[in-house]
Amino acid sequence: MRSFDHEAAAAARERQNSLTKPPGSLGRLEELAQFMAGWQRTPRPHLGRVQGLIFAGNHGIVAQGVNPFPAEVTGQMVENFRSGGAAINQICHVTGVDLSAVPMDIDHPTGDFTQGPAMTLEEVDRAMAEGAAAIADDADLLVLGEMGIGNSTVASILAASTLGGRAEDWVGPGTGATDDILASKLRVVTEGLTLHSPATTRETLAAFGGREQAAICGAILRARELGLPVILDGFICTAAAAVLTRDDPDALAHCLIGHESAEPGHRRLIAALNIRPILSLDMRLGEGSGAALAVAVLRAALACHDGMATFAEAGIA
Amino acid sequence: MRSFDHEAAAAARERQNSLTKPPGSLGRLEELAQFMAGWQRTPRPHLGRVQGLIFAGNHGIVAQGVNPFPAEVTGQMVENFRSGGAAINQICHVTGVDLSAVPMDIDHPTGDFTQGPAMTLEEVDRAMAEGAAAIADDADLLVLGEMGIGNSTVASILAASTLGGRAEDWVGPGTGATDDILASKLRVVTEGLTLHSPATTRETLAAFGGREQAAICGAILRARELGLPVILDGFICTAAAAVLTRDDPDALAHCLIGHESAEPGHRRLIAALNIRPILSLDMRLGEGSGAALAVAVLRAALACHDGMATFAEAGIA
Repeated sequence: MRSFDHEAAAAARERQNSLTKPPGSLGRLEELAQFMAGWQRTPRPHLGRVQGLIFAGNHGIVAQGVNPFPAEVTGQMVENFRSGGAAINQICHVTGVDLSAVPMDIDHPTGDFTQGPAMTLEEVDRAMAEGAAAIADDADLLVLGEMGIGNSTVASILAASTLGGRAEDWVGPGTGATDDILASKLRVVTEGLTLHSPATTRETLAAFGGREQAAICGAILRARELGLPVILDGFICTAAAAVLTRDDPDALAHCLIGHESAEPGHRRLIAALNIRPILSLDMRLGEGSGAALAVAVLRAALACHDGMATFAEAGIA
Repeated sequence: MRSFDHEAAAAARERQNSLTKPPGSLGRLEELAQFMAGWQRTPRPHLGRVQGLIFAGNHGIVAQGVNPFPAEVTGQMVENFRSGGAAINQICHVTGVDLSAVPMDIDHPTGDFTQGPAMTLEEVDRAMAEGAAAIADDADLLVLGEMGIGNSTVASILAASTLGGRAEDWVGPGTGATDDILASKLRVVTEGLTLHSPATTRETLAAFGGREQAAICGAILRARELGLPVILDGFICTAAAAVLTRDDPDALAHCLIGHESAEPGHRRLIAALNIRPILSLDMRLGEGSGAALAVAVLRAALACHDGMATFAEAGIA
C-alpha cells in the first residue's frame, strides 16, 4: 500500500509560495495540488490519463416499487454511455476523462434485501475483484461513478448500516420519487436494517448489495495499493465508498469528493466522512457526472502549480 | 440593447426535459444552459470564442499604505500575463479562454480619493470606452478580471458607496494585510466616504477610481448592447460591476459570478446583487481566475445540452 508522501506535499507547498501570486490565494487549488503531490509522491504532480469508470448493476429491491423507472433502463443507459449519448460522455469530453462503462451482470439482479441477503460473500468478492481489475495501468487519477435503477435505496441502507441513523436520515427523492415511492423506500430501508446486522465491509455489501457498489469498493482499495488518487461522485458513489470505513476508518484518505449532490443524504455522508466536496451545483444525476466535472478544477490546480512563473522568473520583487 | 429571449430559454428547458436524465438532475448546468440560450437568443447556445479581459490600473491611494506590494507590481504582472506566467494564463489554457491583458495608463495612477476625486468624468468616460472597445466581435462569452495594486481598497469603497454600510462591512485582507495595513484600509475608506457623495455610476467611478473598474463597467454595458453574457470574477470585479446598479438596478442581468471569493466582502456583494456564484474554492487572487475557471462548468453545461441523446434517440421508454 503506497502512502501519502508528506515530503512531496511540503515541497509542493514550498513551490506554491514562490509562484507569482499572494501566498494561499489560489485556495483549494493549492490544497488539491498538494493532495496530488502527496499521492503521486512528487512535488510536480501531473494528470496525463484520467480514467473514468461507471459501474452499473441491477437490484432485486426494485420489485418493491422504489423507483419510477423499470430495471431495463440500467442496460439501456449502459448502451447510451457506450454510444456517447449520456451526460457523463459530454462532461468527460470537456474535462478530458477517458470513460468506460462496466456492466456488472445486469441481467441478474441482486437479491431483495428485505427477503434475505442481496449477495453471497463470494459474489461480493467477485464484484470487488472486477472493480479492481478495471483500473488502467497508466491512470494518474480515477473518477468513479455508477448507474443502477433502484440504487439510491441501496445507498441509503448502506449509509444507515455503516454510519448509523434511521431510514428517514438517509432516504431522499433519488431520480425523482412520488410520495408512494418515497414511502416504499423508507419502508424497505427500515425492514432491511431490522433483518441484517452486518459488521464488516464485505458483510455489508453482501447484505444490501449491489454489484456496482462492491466494484466501487474494490476499485478504491486497489487504487490505494497503487497510490492512485480517486474522485468520488455523489450520494450513491460516496455511500458505497463509506462502507470501506467499516474495516478501516482511514480507507478513503486518497479519495476526493467531486461534488455535493442535491440528494439530501449526501450532505450527511460528507459530514460523516469529513471530506469537503469540490463543487456544489445541485446536480443529482450520478453516472460520475459531478466527479468528472471536478476534474476541470484538478486540471486547473495542476496547471497553475506546474506552469506558473516564480517571482524570480518573472522579475517581480 | 438586446434582451433576454424567454422563448429561447423555454425551448432550451423543453429540450433538457427530453434528454436521457431525470428532469432537472443536472441542476445548475441546466440553469446555465437556459441562461445562455436566453442571452444568445437560441435554444442551442454555443461557446466558440470565450474572451477573457484583464484590465489593469494603478491607484493613488497606495500612498496611504493600503497594500504590502509596491505599485510597480501592477505593470510587472501585466508583463507576466503577456508572457504566460500567471495563474490566469494556466486556467485559461485549461478552460479554453482567449486572454488579453489591457493596461489602463498604469504609469499615471488615479488620484488619492482621501484628497479629492480619483478621476475626472472625462477620464471615466475614456476608460469606459476603452473597456467597451476591447470586446472582440466574435466573442460568445466574456470573462472579466482585473489587476491593480491597492484595488481591493477601491473595491471596498465602491461597494460601500453604492450599497451602503460602513468601512468595516467591506474592508478585508485583500492580497494579505498586516494589522497596520488593515487599519489604513479602514481609515481611508471611512475618510473617502465622508469626502465624497456620488449619486451616479460615472460620479462614483470618478470619486474613487479606478481606470480598470471603469473599463469593467464599460465592457459590461457594451456586452449588454451586444446580448453577450459575462462572467464576473471575485470581490474587486464584482464591486466594479455593482456600481452600474446605481444607474440601472437591472444592469447585471446578463452577468454571472464565476466564484465566491474568500475575501469577506464578496459574500455581502453576492447577497446584495442576488447572483449565485458558480464555484466556491476559497480563491482570492483576482486576475479573472475564478471567472475563467467557471468557464469549465459553462462548457460542460452546453456540451450536455447540445450533445446528449434524447430518450427517443437512445430508445429508452
